[in-house]
Amino acid sequence: MKIILVGASGTLGQEISIALSAADRTIVKIGRKSGDVQADFAGPDGLTEIYKALQPFDAVAIAAGAVAFGPFPEITREQWQFSFNNKLLGQISAVQQALPYINDRGSFTLVGGLMSEEPIPMGAAASTVNRALEGFVVAAGIELPRSLRINLISPSLIEESLPRFGDLAPGVIPVSAARVAQAYKRSILGAHTGQIYKVRG
Amino acid sequence: MKIILVGASGTLGQEISIALSAADRTIVKIGRKSGDVQADFAGPDGLTEIYKALQPFDAVAIAAGAVAFGPFPEITREQWQFSFNNKLLGQISAVQQALPYINDRGSFTLVGGLMSEEPIPMGAAASTVNRALEGFVVAAGIELPRSLRINLISPSLIEESLPRFGDLAPGVIPVSAARVAQAYKRSILGAHTGQIYKVRG
Repeated sequence: MKIILVGASGTLGQEISIALSAADRTIVKIGRKSGDVQADFAGPDGLTEIYKALQPFDAVAIAAGAVAFGPFPEITREQWQFSFNNKLLGQISAVQQALPYINDRGSFTLVGGLMSEEPIPMGAAASTVNRALEGFVVAAGIELPRSLRINLISPSLIEESLPRFGDLAPGVIPVSAARVAQAYKRSILGAHTGQIYKVRG
Repeated sequence: MKIILVGASGTLGQEISIALSAADRTIVKIGRKSGDVQADFAGPDGLTEIYKALQPFDAVAIAAGAVAFGPFPEITREQWQFSFNNKLLGQISAVQQALPYINDRGSFTLVGGLMSEEPIPMGAAASTVNRALEGFVVAAGIELPRSLRINLISPSLIEESLPRFGDLAPGVIPVSAARVAQAYKRSILGAHTGQIYKVRG
């Protein structure tokens, strides 16, 4: 089984690599500046050439994607469009670009997050994008051909992010990146599709 | 009370006008090619100048917004971006642009739709955008200043749209535009904020 992991060098990506490691699995690590292949998955060229070079493969898992943060009334049009183009359209494109190269019954695992249902101050773009990804995965789940599967991981605040976001999310119980990685394992090795795996503390 | 109604000449917009009509209310009808003022709310200039000319006002209600339809694997990057810029960012911008001109305790009423939770073939962009709007409204609801309120109307298939979408949504019970208009009335004249009014058949 060959798995393409986008965002492999991040806190979460590293734990996904560990959780999926096995003798009969190859994990190809994609990172902007590190990993086996360097690429910006949300850039205009996307991952098409990389997919072509690595084909065929069985899974694409994403643990990357950025959105703008700021007080809602001040989020600019450019910040909204950055957020839509990066975490949202970046992941959607990563799915669409892979379709010609992924094996039958292959899987896509995308990442959303808690803010889809628990907004925090300065997080309007995150709430919008994370909820959008839920709608996308549910819709793509009914249209993917060749028994391809797609699921979304929706982690709570990750323990390793507490210093950055903890004060904005009082009372939210964080989860470890290792626990979130288990949800990726369920999605990639399981049989579900169109599901949202909520990983909550 | 002065209400700015965007998309006033559509099937739904006309029913909203009727439902809200009262001696002590002024409804300013905005349409792309008709109404009291002509403007494309999702265009680059948005509604800022119109808001400035009409200030102060008490409510902005939107019954407009377009998304691309097509088989998921074939929706192009341009079609995704059109969908994000029109129904999603168009409505977000309509809120942000109004903030300097709307009265304290004023309200915003946006429109999403059933596909956020019930995807249909060819509707991946609609599912994505409609669900995104739910996340946006929930998040904006906790950040709006001056007791401003914001809610989302999520209509089922509207009876008048049956000829266009009915075959793609078998078994979905449609609702009349007049009934959806009552949800706008609840949002505009009520006291809720951050709510999603699901109008289902």
